[in-house]
Amino acid sequence: MSTGFFGDVAKIEFEGPDSTNPLAYRFYDKDEVVMGKRMEDHLRFSVAYWHSFAWPGGDPFGGQTFERPWFPQAGGTDTMDLARLKADVAFEMFSALGTPFFCFHDADVRPEGETLKESIARLDEIADYFGGKMEETGVKLLWGTANLFSHRRYMAGAATNPDPDVFAYAAATVKSCIDVTKRLDGQNYVLWGGREGYETLLNTDLKREMEQAGRFLAMVVDYKHKIGFEGTILIEPKPQEPTKHQYDYDVATVYGFLRKFGLENEVKVNIEQGHAILAGHSFEHELAMANALGIFGSIDMNRNDYQSGWDTDQFPNNVPEMALAFYQILEGGGFTTGGTNFDAKLRRQSLDPQDLLHAHIGGMDCCARGLKAAARMIEDKALSGPLEERYAGWKSGEAKAMLSGNGTLEQISEHVLSNGIEPQPKSGRQEYLENIVNRYV
Amino acid sequence: MSTGFFGDVAKIEFEGPDSTNPLAYRFYDKDEVVMGKRMEDHLRFSVAYWHSFAWPGGDPFGGQTFERPWFPQAGGTDTMDLARLKADVAFEMFSALGTPFFCFHDADVRPEGETLKESIARLDEIADYFGGKMEETGVKLLWGTANLFSHRRYMAGAATNPDPDVFAYAAATVKSCIDVTKRLDGQNYVLWGGREGYETLLNTDLKREMEQAGRFLAMVVDYKHKIGFEGTILIEPKPQEPTKHQYDYDVATVYGFLRKFGLENEVKVNIEQGHAILAGHSFEHELAMANALGIFGSIDMNRNDYQSGWDTDQFPNNVPEMALAFYQILEGGGFTTGGTNFDAKLRRQSLDPQDLLHAHIGGMDCCARGLKAAARMIEDKALSGPLEERYAGWKSGEAKAMLSGNGTLEQISEHVLSNGIEPQPKSGRQEYLENIVNRYV
Amino acid sequence: MSTGFFGDVAKIEFEGPDSTNPLAYRFYDKDEVVMGKRMEDHLRFSVAYWHSFAWPGGDPFGGQTFERPWFPQAGGTDTMDLARLKADVAFEMFSALGTPFFCFHDADVRPEGETLKESIARLDEIADYFGGKMEETGVKLLWGTANLFSHRRYMAGAATNPDPDVFAYAAATVKSCIDVTKRLDGQNYVLWGGREGYETLLNTDLKREMEQAGRFLAMVVDYKHKIGFEGTILIEPKPQEPTKHQYDYDVATVYGFLRKFGLENEVKVNIEQGHAILAGHSFEHELAMANALGIFGSIDMNRNDYQSGWDTDQFPNNVPEMALAFYQILEGGGFTTGGTNFDAKLRRQSLDPQDLLHAHIGGMDCCARGLKAAARMIEDKALSGPLEERYAGWKSGEAKAMLSGNGTLEQISEHVLSNGIEPQPKSGRQEYLENIVNRYV
Amino acid sequence: MSTGFFGDVAKIEFEGPDSTNPLAYRFYDKDEVVMGKRMEDHLRFSVAYWHSFAWPGGDPFGGQTFERPWFPQAGGTDTMDLARLKADVAFEMFSALGTPFFCFHDADVRPEGETLKESIARLDEIADYFGGKMEETGVKLLWGTANLFSHRRYMAGAATNPDPDVFAYAAATVKSCIDVTKRLDGQNYVLWGGREGYETLLNTDLKREMEQAGRFLAMVVDYKHKIGFEGTILIEPKPQEPTKHQYDYDVATVYGFLRKFGLENEVKVNIEQGHAILAGHSFEHELAMANALGIFGSIDMNRNDYQSGWDTDQFPNNVPEMALAFYQILEGGGFTTGGTNFDAKLRRQSLDPQDLLHAHIGGMDCCARGLKAAARMIEDKALSGPLEERYAGWKSGEAKAMLSGNGTLEQISEHVLSNGIEPQPKSGRQEYLENIVNRYV
Repeated sequence: MSTGFFGDVAKIEFEGPDSTNPLAYRFYDKDEVVMGKRMEDHLRFSVAYWHSFAWPGGDPFGGQTFERPWFPQAGGTDTMDLARLKADVAFEMFSALGTPFFCFHDADVRPEGETLKESIARLDEIADYFGGKMEETGVKLLWGTANLFSHRRYMAGAATNPDPDVFAYAAATVKSCIDVTKRLDGQNYVLWGGREGYETLLNTDLKREMEQAGRFLAMVVDYKHKIGFEGTILIEPKPQEPTKHQYDYDVATVYGFLRKFGLENEVKVNIEQGHAILAGHSFEHELAMANALGIFGSIDMNRNDYQSGWDTDQFPNNVPEMALAFYQILEGGGFTTGGTNFDAKLRRQSLDPQDLLHAHIGGMDCCARGLKAAARMIEDKALSGPLEERYAGWKSGEAKAMLSGNGTLEQISEHVLSNGIEPQPKSGRQEYLENIVNRYV
Repeated sequence: MSTGFFGDVAKIEFEGPDSTNPLAYRFYDKDEVVMGKRMEDHLRFSVAYWHSFAWPGGDPFGGQTFERPWFPQAGGTDTMDLARLKADVAFEMFSALGTPFFCFHDADVRPEGETLKESIARLDEIADYFGGKMEETGVKLLWGTANLFSHRRYMAGAATNPDPDVFAYAAATVKSCIDVTKRLDGQNYVLWGGREGYETLLNTDLKREMEQAGRFLAMVVDYKHKIGFEGTILIEPKPQEPTKHQYDYDVATVYGFLRKFGLENEVKVNIEQGHAILAGHSFEHELAMANALGIFGSIDMNRNDYQSGWDTDQFPNNVPEMALAFYQILEGGGFTTGGTNFDAKLRRQSLDPQDLLHAHIGGMDCCARGLKAAARMIEDKALSGPLEERYAGWKSGEAKAMLSGNGTLEQISEHVLSNGIEPQPKSGRQEYLENIVNRYV
Repeated sequence: MSTGFFGDVAKIEFEGPDSTNPLAYRFYDKDEVVMGKRMEDHLRFSVAYWHSFAWPGGDPFGGQTFERPWFPQAGGTDTMDLARLKADVAFEMFSALGTPFFCFHDADVRPEGETLKESIARLDEIADYFGGKMEETGVKLLWGTANLFSHRRYMAGAATNPDPDVFAYAAATVKSCIDVTKRLDGQNYVLWGGREGYETLLNTDLKREMEQAGRFLAMVVDYKHKIGFEGTILIEPKPQEPTKHQYDYDVATVYGFLRKFGLENEVKVNIEQGHAILAGHSFEHELAMANALGIFGSIDMNRNDYQSGWDTDQFPNNVPEMALAFYQILEGGGFTTGGTNFDAKLRRQSLDPQDLLHAHIGGMDCCARGLKAAARMIEDKALSGPLEERYAGWKSGEAKAMLSGNGTLEQISEHVLSNGIEPQPKSGRQEYLENIVNRYV
Repeated sequence: MSTGFFGDVAKIEFEGPDSTNPLAYRFYDKDEVVMGKRMEDHLRFSVAYWHSFAWPGGDPFGGQTFERPWFPQAGGTDTMDLARLKADVAFEMFSALGTPFFCFHDADVRPEGETLKESIARLDEIADYFGGKMEETGVKLLWGTANLFSHRRYMAGAATNPDPDVFAYAAATVKSCIDVTKRLDGQNYVLWGGREGYETLLNTDLKREMEQAGRFLAMVVDYKHKIGFEGTILIEPKPQEPTKHQYDYDVATVYGFLRKFGLENEVKVNIEQGHAILAGHSFEHELAMANALGIFGSIDMNRNDYQSGWDTDQFPNNVPEMALAFYQILEGGGFTTGGTNFDAKLRRQSLDPQDLLHAHIGGMDCCARGLKAAARMIEDKALSGPLEERYAGWKSGEAKAMLSGNGTLEQISEHVLSNGIEPQPKSGRQEYLENIVNRYV
C-alpha cells in the first residue's frame, strides 16, 4: 500500500540511452554484465536516509524549504508515528529506484528521547520496523552510523570531548548503533567525526584528543569482534567543516592515525568526493591513495562545487569524473563490503517529490556510464599498457636490487659515477593519455 | 676585506623598540635571556642561501630582475669564481645580521658540472671554501640538502621517477650532499621532494612511487648511521606546487609515511609556514601536530599570502601569528637540532642590496617579538591554565579507566545508562582566550 | 531595572593597556582624541542584533547550542513578549559596552506574522519599543535592513526571483523597513542580497535577474528621496554563500552594477572583512577600492578564518590587520554616516552571557589599537611619504601631459623612440615598508 | 619544404568517432554544418604562438625541459634566424592541424633588441615573414598583443607603473604591436595586464594606477580609430598571478572599469577558463556575464586544475564543461571577430613534438563535441524551454509594470498588502536540468 508521496510512480526501469523518459535509466541496467559481474553487484548503490528524508532544506542563511508529511508541524513534536511514515516513504523510494542498499544515522530514523535509554529504545523499535520493510523489499543495509555531531552535547567533540561524560555518552550511543547495525545485517559500520577536531587551538589539547579518538576506535573494533559483527569498520575522512580542523583530514591522515593505534588492518575508509575536494585532492586521488595503502572500503558519491569552499553535497553529474573514479575502484578490485552511497542532498529549491527521483536516477546513470567507460579502459589496457611501459626500466635486476633492501647509497653512487650515468628524460605523454580517456567517455 | 656589495653596512645591532634605524634590531637582542635561554639559542636563525643569493627574481611571467655581480652575464657561463664571490657576499650578510646559521642546496653554491663527478668535485671545492668562511665568521650550517627538482632529469621525480637511472642519480647526489653536510658539521639534513609527486594520475603508479620513496629514505637513514652523521634527517612537507600532488603533503601525511616504512623514530619534519597554508592548515596547527606525533624538527619561517594559491615565500611580518607559532614550539620544548630558517625570498621588485637586510631584520624582529610574547604566555600559564581546567574531568579515576585499555563499550554503556548520565556542555571561551593572547602581543 | 542576564556587570570602562580585567577596555577610550576627533566618533561602533541576540548557535551540522531566556522553548512559539525581553537584554548590553549604535533586520526583532500586514505591524510595535530604549540609553541606529533570505519564499531570490510576486513581496517588505529605519533616525539603510544570485546557471536568466535587481534598487533610491530619508543606501557585497554566485560579488562588481543603472552617486558599500576574504581579496583591498571608486560607506568588522571556505563571522583579533584596514578608512577621510559594525557571531561553543561581552570588548579594543596605529602612521607620513616619492616622476609636465587627454600613442611613441628612453626599474621596497608598519603595531 | 620537426606528419584529418588514430580528429569536422554554420566558422580555432613555440618548459622550481631546434643553445644568443625557424615550424603545425588562426605577442616572435627601435624593426621584419607564411597557408591572425610583463622594466606595471617612462615605453610598444596587427589583418587586439596590479598596497596608489590604466586604454582606442584598424580591442581579465591583485580581476570588474572611462562600447573581453577559475567563477559564468553586459569578445580555451591555485594552462579535456561553455557562447550569438584560442601549454614533461599535436587535437575535438552538444540543446530548447516557463510570471502586464520605471515601492506595497499576496515557492528543478544536459553530452 503506497503512501502516495511520489504519486503514481512505478518502478524505474532501464530504457537505454535513447530514452527521454526522465523516470527511466538510460545507462544503469542492473543485470548487464560488466567485467564478469552484474552492474548492481559492481555499483552496490545505496541511498542515505538523512539528506533524502530527514533534512528540511535549511542552510546557514535560511530555514526549512521542504514540506514533507513526515515532518512535525511548525512548533510541533516529532513522533514515532512520523518516523514510521518516513520509513514507509523511504522504502517506497528504494523500491522504485531499485537501489539494493540504504544507510542511516540513529538520529535520522527516530525522535531523540528524553534520555539515552529512551533514544535507544526508539532506535530498537524503528529497527524492527526497518527489519520488516527490508524483508518485504529486499533492500539491505550498507551501513549504520551514530550521529555524534548535531546535538549540543557534542559541540566540542564526541570521543575527543574535554568532558569524559561526553566520551562515555558517545561510546554508549555507538554501542547501540553497532548493535542495531548487526541486527539488520549491515555490511559496514561508519564513523564520521564531524566534531572530532577543533575550533581553535587555544582551547585544545591536540595530542590528548587524538589519543582519546584512538582509544575510542580501538574499543569499537574490540566490540565488533566480541559480538561477532562481520561488517567492516569505516572511517570517513573530512578535513574541516563544521570544525576548523577535523582529525580525520584525508585518507593519508587516517592511515597515519590507524598505524599509530595499530588498527590499519581493522579499519578502512569511506571516501566522499566532496570531502576529497575540500582537502585539496581529486576524488580519484583519494581512491588511489586508499588502494595504495590497503584501506579502501566504500564511497559516498556526492560531489562538491569546485567554486564553493564548503560541502555542497550535490548529486554527481560529470561522467568523465565518474569514469576516473570507478577506474581506480576497479583497478583496486572493486567493492567488497562497500558500495556507492549517495550521501547527496537535493538543492534546497528542489521542492517536489519527483526531484528526489530525478536526482537519484541522474546520479545512478552517471555512475553507470562511468563504470562502463572505466571497465572498457581496463579491458583495453588503455592506460595500464602505457603505464607498464613507462615503468619498464624497473624490471631489470639491477633496478630491482636498488629497492630490495640491500641497496645502499654508496653502491648506487659508485655505480652512477663509474658508469657515467646521465639519465635522459622521456615524455610523460599526459595530453595523449587524456585523449585516450576521451575515447571512452 | 669587504666585497662592497652592501656598501658601508656594519654589524646590525640591537637598539631597542624605540629605534627608528631601519638597520637595527628593535626586538632581537641575541643575548637577552628568555625562559632561561639566550634568544639566539632559542631562535637559532638561519639564512637560506638560495633565495637570497641564487634566485634571479623570475616568476612564471617574467625573467630576472636582480642584477648581482655574482650572476653570469646574459648569455654568459656560471663559474667557480662567481660561486666564490657569491659566498663572500653571503657570509658578509650572515655576519652583518649575526645569524648563527645558514643552509644550502648543492645547486645553489656551485655551477652544475658536465658530469655528476664534476658537479660533486665542485661541491667539494666550494665546501672547502665555506669551511674557511665558517671558521672565520663563526657561522654554522643548519642543514644541507640536494636540489632534486630543478634539472630536467628530475622533471618526473627523483626517488619516485619511473626511470631507475634517475633514482640512482638522485641517490648518488644525496650521498654527496650528506657527505658535505657532515663535513661542514651540519646539524640536520633536509629532503624536500618538490618533484616527488605527480602531474596526472593517468601516467602514475602511486603505490610503486611511494614504495620507491620509502626505500630511498631508508637508504638515507642507513647511510647517515653508517658514516656517523649525527644530525637529524628532516622531511619538509608540501602539498603541491610544482606538482599537482606531492607525496609529503603535510605533517600528518609524512607521519603515516614514516610509520609505513618504520622510520618514525629516525626522521623528523621541517615545517614551512607557507606550505602549511597551501595544505589548508594554519602554521601553528602543523607545529602542534608535529609535537603531538613526536616528529617536530625545524621550521622554514616564510609566510604565504592568504589570498594567493601558490608559494609566495614572503618574510614574516605578522607578530600575533609568530607568537602563536613560537608558543607551540616552546610548548614542545623548543628546537634541538632545528632552527628558524628564512626560506623566504625578496619580492622581485626589491632590487637593492639593502632590501636583503631589511627583509631579514624585519623577519628576525618579528620572530623575536613573537617568541617573547609566547614565553610570557607560558610563564603566566595564560593559556595552559584554562586548558588544564577544561580537561580537568579526565583526571578522575573513572575517566582514566575508560582510556586505560581496559575500558569496553559495554561497561561504559552500562555506566551511562544506569547512572542516567546527561552531559552538560560548557563554554569553550574562544573569544576570552583570544583576548588573553592580545594582552601579550 | 536589569534583566539579570549578564549578572552584575556594570558599564565596561577604559582601564588602560596594563589592565588584566577581562571586563575592561585596554585601548578603547571613547573620549581620547585621535587626529582631532574622539575615538567614539572615529570608530562609531555598532552591534548587530542578529548574531548576538537572534542566532541560536546552529551550523549546517548541528542545532541550537545557546539557551537564552528570550528563545521560545523547544516546540514553542515565538512571541512579542519574548521580543521585548530580547530587546531589554540587547539594550543592556549596548549600554554596558557603551557602543553608540546598533543594527537590525526586521526578522531579528519580531516574530514573523501570519501575513505581511501582521509582520509589519509587529515591526512597528517593536520599533516603538526600541524608540523608548534608544531615548533612554542614547544608543542610535546605524542601519536597518530587511531579511530577504531566510524565509523559503526567498529561496530563489528576492528582487531577482523568477516569480514577480516575490519581487513585490520583497519590495513591500523593504518599504516597511525603510520606514522604520527613518522613524528611528537610522543613519543608513543596507541591502545584502544573500539570495540575489543563483545556484545553477541551468535555471537562471542572469541578464534578466540583474535587470530586476537594478530596478529594485532604483525604486529604493526613489523612495528614500520621496520620504526624505537622509541616510545612505548601502549595498553589502559578498561573492557567494548561501548561493553559488551572488550578483554583488565584491566592491568592483557593485561599482559596475551601480554604473549600469546610473546609481553610482546614490549608493555606497558596506564592506565586510569576511566577505572580502571569500572574494579573494584582503579587507584593506576592498576598502582601498571603495575609496578609489568613491563609494565607501561602512564596514562590518568580522573576520573569516583564512583556512575555511565559508563565512565564519568571527570577532576581529589581529591588530596589525586592523591597523591596515583603518589606515585605508582614515586615508579616505573616515566614516560619515557609516560605522564599525560587529556583524560577528560568538563561536557556538561560547555559551555564557559573558562570552558576548568578552567578544565585543576584545573586538573593540582590537579596532581601537588598529585605529591608533593607523593614525600615527598617517601623522608621521610613514607610508604616504615613500608613496609620494615613488610616484614623483608623474609630477613633471611631460608626464602629466600623457594623462591629460591630449596624449596620443603616436606622440608618446615618437618621444620614446627619438629620445631613446630606456626606463630603469627602482626597488619597490616592500620589506622596508612592512618593517615600517611594524613600528606602529 | 618541411623542417622535419614533426617527422612525417601529414594534415590531421577527420576520421569520425570510432577512429583510434591519435593523429586524427574524431569530432572536429570543419565542414560539418551545425546550426547553419560550418564548425570551422563557429569555433574559429587559434593557436597561441607563445606556449607552443616560445615556452621552454620551466616553472618556479625548475628550468627548461623542451629542447627545440629554434631555442638558442645554453649560454647562446637568440637570433632572427632562429625566429624564422620557429615561424617555419609554427606554420607547419597550423597547417597540419588546420587551425584557421594564430595569435602572438611581440616578444614571442623576435629576439628583444638593444633598443626599442631595434625591437620594433625586428618585429616588422618577422611580420613580413609571417605575411608570406599566412599567404601561403591561409592561416589568419586572430589577434596580436604586446608582452608588457616579462621584462624587468615592467616589474611594477606597464600602464600602471609609478615611473612615467615605463608608461611611455609601453605605449610606444603597444603602438608598434597594433600597427603590425593591422598590417597582418588581425581580427582583434588584446591587452592582458599581467603586471597591472600590485604586490602590496603599502607602496601602491590604487586610484592613480587605475586612472593611468584608463587613460592608456582610451589612447589605444583612439589610435585604433585613427589608423582605421577594424578589429576589436579586447581586455583579458585575470584576478592575480603574477601580481597579488590584478586590476582586470574578472568580467564584472572590467565592465565597471570600462564604464568608468566611457569605453564600454569600444572594448570587449577575452575570457580564459583558467582565469575564471582563479577568480572563483565557473567558465560558463564569465561567459554568461559577458553576454549579459554586452562585452563578450573571444575565449582562451585553457583550463586550470581545480585543485591548484595558480594558472595551470592545460588543454581542455572535459566535454560536459565544454558543452556548457559553448552553450553560453551560442546563446549569445557566437563569435564575431573572436575565436577559440588555445592559450594552453603542454605539461613540461610532454617533451615530444607529437605531444604538441596530441594536445591540440584533443583540445579541438573536445571543443567540437561540446559545441555540437550545445547546439543540440539549443535546437531542442532543452534548457531554454524550462527557463522560459520558470520566468513566465513576468510576462503579465502587472509584473512588467513593476520593472517599467513607473513602479514605486508604495504602489507595490499597497498592491501586496491589499491583495494579501503570499508567494508560493516552486521547485528550481536543478537535478532534472542536470539530467537533461547529460542527455546531450
